[in-house]
Amino acid sequence: MKKIIETVPNFSEGRDRNNIERIILPFKGHDNVKLLDVHTDADHNRMVVTAVGEPEALKHAVIEAVGVAVKVIDMPAHRGEHPRMGAVDVVPLIPIKNATMEEAITLSKEVAREIWETYHLPVFLYEESASTPIRKNLADIRKGQFEGMPEKLKSSEWKPDFGEREIHPTAGVVAVGARMPLIAFNVNLDTNNLEIARAIAKTVRYSSGGLKYCKAIGIALKERNITQVSMNMTDYTQTPLHQALELVRTEAKRYGVNVVGSEIVGLVPMAALVDSAAYYMGFEDFNIEKVLEAKMME
Amino acid sequence: MKKIIETVPNFSEGRDRNNIERIILPFKGHDNVKLLDVHTDADHNRMVVTAVGEPEALKHAVIEAVGVAVKVIDMPAHRGEHPRMGAVDVVPLIPIKNATMEEAITLSKEVAREIWETYHLPVFLYEESASTPIRKNLADIRKGQFEGMPEKLKSSEWKPDFGEREIHPTAGVVAVGARMPLIAFNVNLDTNNLEIARAIAKTVRYSSGGLKYCKAIGIALKERNITQVSMNMTDYTQTPLHQALELVRTEAKRYGVNVVGSEIVGLVPMAALVDSAAYYMGFEDFNIEKVLEAKMME
Repeated sequence: MKKIIETVPNFSEGRDRNNIERIILPFKGHDNVKLLDVHTDADHNRMVVTAVGEPEALKHAVIEAVGVAVKVIDMPAHRGEHPRMGAVDVVPLIPIKNATMEEAITLSKEVAREIWETYHLPVFLYEESASTPIRKNLADIRKGQFEGMPEKLKSSEWKPDFGEREIHPTAGVVAVGARMPLIAFNVNLDTNNLEIARAIAKTVRYSSGGLKYCKAIGIALKERNITQVSMNMTDYTQTPLHQALELVRTEAKRYGVNVVGSEIVGLVPMAALVDSAAYYMGFEDFNIEKVLEAKMME
Repeated sequence: MKKIIETVPNFSEGRDRNNIERIILPFKGHDNVKLLDVHTDADHNRMVVTAVGEPEALKHAVIEAVGVAVKVIDMPAHRGEHPRMGAVDVVPLIPIKNATMEEAITLSKEVAREIWETYHLPVFLYEESASTPIRKNLADIRKGQFEGMPEKLKSSEWKPDFGEREIHPTAGVVAVGARMPLIAFNVNLDTNNLEIARAIAKTVRYSSGGLKYCKAIGIALKERNITQVSMNMTDYTQTPLHQALELVRTEAKRYGVNVVGSEIVGLVPMAALVDSAAYYMGFEDFNIEKVLEAKMME
């Protein structure tokens, strides 16, 4: 049974076609690594790569790609709308199949050490790999962005986990860490009243008393004249998608509002959808082993 | 993109451990073939093997397994509760991934020809591969069973597609053909009135005016004191599972009865569950390419 890890590194390059090709090349050239998706955004000047593979092979590919990014991206000259703190903003490592979170954490620390030792790019460990609670959240690490990092690294709490209190001059710093698969799940409401979407988001999200593995905000979909509860499901094995959807639906009733659709942004693990299908269809004694493709991938 | 075909051959051996092992061995020994499941039933004296693989490799494995079955199974001495017409009762070939029904049909005819030429086992082509409408349905081909085949083959409509009008003396005849994946899907009702389950089954099944790709019967689950609409979904891409479930639910209301659960028997293609999840969750613009595992298997 092959172990499969996913990585979704974010690179601060979304414009130069040549650089983009060079950065993703390592994910194409390794056995036992598969490049699934490349999403570039010129406004953000940023690229999100999705790849899966066996742990060792994926580790080498991601380290190699980081090396290319450090070489070709010049952060002092970088402009773009998305917050960023380095040539490689973040390297998440996600256990997908036959791999535990513990193994993903170990792998993330190997990646972090090698990035520092090879490229002298300082690394913060984040999420499940974080060395302290204030480093769990990527947004907290990134606060201050590339321009504010030199000063931030000098403050007592912000010595990198690997590296010294000094940024890489052209590549800044990077966050590396293990986390669960994240599912971007949006639910649309038949109201253009943004206050209602925001109130529902507040009810379903963990930070204000809602579901443990759910982040949510209310946003307007102006062209459609409706609103949306935009969610990040941070552990679908603990907080399933259908739970979030049904809670939004139930809360919406309070305002005389209905759910009119939903969407998944990016990729979603099969198990998350199979789990929700089993819920809605009332399967007794179902498990993922009954799915042909799950058996095929064993 | 690798083409993947599934086969679910039924062998008339469910008791002798040594024979069982010999018959399934070819599915273990080929590259690009994966044995997914072996289900043996001593009462039926029958075994159902599930395997997937690339077309050529799977073809060789299944032909090899048929050869072993022809050698080790003695049909004149065979006793068991399940109807059967030969040492290998049926060899379905199912397009699973990047393969069309047309390709599965072509493959089935290659398998059929080689089974006849190598083992002198006469073959009827059935389902999508059938040469005439009366050979589409396996039950029609099998009628008369092993004991009645010598006479049946002499009647005008029943000359085998490959072979002469004479059975293999110890292995009988076999049906080979391409078909869609079949999903065994049962829906439980909170009534012990078998007439109600039967009436609902009649409403949902194609043969009496219901859903095109649905076969259904009503059965009693005596230990639980409830009844069940037991369905075979013969093409989930045309008649989705959730359509059958919701139709059973709607019909049940007519009798003041409720759906209390459901079950999948055997394996189910990921796409069937993903499709139903998308229906119940109201996904807009969803497609299977958003499923991580589907991308991984491309």
